[in-house]
Amino acid sequence: MVSERSRTVGILGGMGPEATLDFMHRIIALTPAVTDADHIHMLVDNNPHVPSRQAAILDDGTDPGPTLVKMAKQLEAAGADVLVMPCNTAHAWQDDIVAATAIPFVSIIDETVARCVEFERVGLLATRACLRSELYQAKFAAADKELLLPTDEELAEFTRLIAIIKTGEKDAAVGVAMQALAEGLCERGAQAVIAGCTEIPLVLDVGALSVPLLSSTDILAEATVAIARQ
Amino acid sequence: MVSERSRTVGILGGMGPEATLDFMHRIIALTPAVTDADHIHMLVDNNPHVPSRQAAILDDGTDPGPTLVKMAKQLEAAGADVLVMPCNTAHAWQDDIVAATAIPFVSIIDETVARCVEFERVGLLATRACLRSELYQAKFAAADKELLLPTDEELAEFTRLIAIIKTGEKDAAVGVAMQALAEGLCERGAQAVIAGCTEIPLVLDVGALSVPLLSSTDILAEATVAIARQ
Repeated sequence: MVSERSRTVGILGGMGPEATLDFMHRIIALTPAVTDADHIHMLVDNNPHVPSRQAAILDDGTDPGPTLVKMAKQLEAAGADVLVMPCNTAHAWQDDIVAATAIPFVSIIDETVARCVEFERVGLLATRACLRSELYQAKFAAADKELLLPTDEELAEFTRLIAIIKTGEKDAAVGVAMQALAEGLCERGAQAVIAGCTEIPLVLDVGALSVPLLSSTDILAEATVAIARQ
Repeated sequence: MVSERSRTVGILGGMGPEATLDFMHRIIALTPAVTDADHIHMLVDNNPHVPSRQAAILDDGTDPGPTLVKMAKQLEAAGADVLVMPCNTAHAWQDDIVAATAIPFVSIIDETVARCVEFERVGLLATRACLRSELYQAKFAAADKELLLPTDEELAEFTRLIAIIKTGEKDAAVGVAMQALAEGLCERGAQAVIAGCTEIPLVLDVGALSVPLLSSTDILAEATVAIARQ
């Protein structure tokens, strides 16, 4: 009865909530559509109450794994054909999600790394917990490519900016400061910079840098639309 | 384990998909928050494949009722404490949804009408199917207030504009044309105009008119945040 022209996408969201909406916007914008029915069906658990990934990885806080697994299983039960999670750090629990479900999981890390083939040295902006989990470093080492990371000082500044973005603040100064961090990586030789946190594109346009800014949000959205419309 | 500081909101969405995101944005913007955890948990079925409400009401098309009921029951089963549906026309099936679920349903029609108490004559921009269903007319008649409706010609123009918005087109000319329709109601004596279709605020700012524009999207979002944070 319902015309299902594409696969249903299950989204583990809310980390943060605004970043999930940004991701959903990209999915809609990337889908060729004349009427509502041409769009992709999205089942979204926009859950800002998932235990902090930062606290779990850095400070031995509550493990978010069981919550993420529960969300994934519920999305699968509700009819999702494929799962995505527009939060880089939460991919530290990707294996738990994949083990608990029978549908494909499209990894934001894998998709973003796949876009780096043309570059020899790539800079990465990501949270302290994402870096501590070595989600990107492991893939770059395997591919024998150089990954430039923020210094401790830059990481402290990045943490400060993400906290501001999460309050909903969209002051232009935050974007300028984020751009400065990305340019710092370019000055050290990065031929492209990965926006490895889905909060970054909320304040920084992909065209703002002197080198390509690889938005993990946009890259996951493109991969999701391609898979949903296969 | 999960800190639930507010009720979980279930959203019957996708009618259209962009209008649902606009509604979610409003919920996030209206929620006082410092960290992710302060935000409201939203379970969203952004389903653009719900059978056309226009076709069902105007042309004896497929009944969307069973799909809307299925979505509502699934959101309730997934943990929603309250249901909302950011689509005016779909409220023609509100009674079916309410009958099939045990949790509160916040009506976009009721909330919007409640905001009209201070006006004697209110204009309404809504789809042909929404008008045919007399969702707003019935409430205004009960309150003994005057509701100004678009002429047949204005309604044809409104239908044309909504079709353009649904293609994702955000040309300024569409906003200008929508504003002209609203101003037409003002010229006939409307002291305020109801944006009784959630596609309207995608092209028309609430401050754009010479009288208050009552965005049903914003009004439902405000009611939703109030109930979720009770």
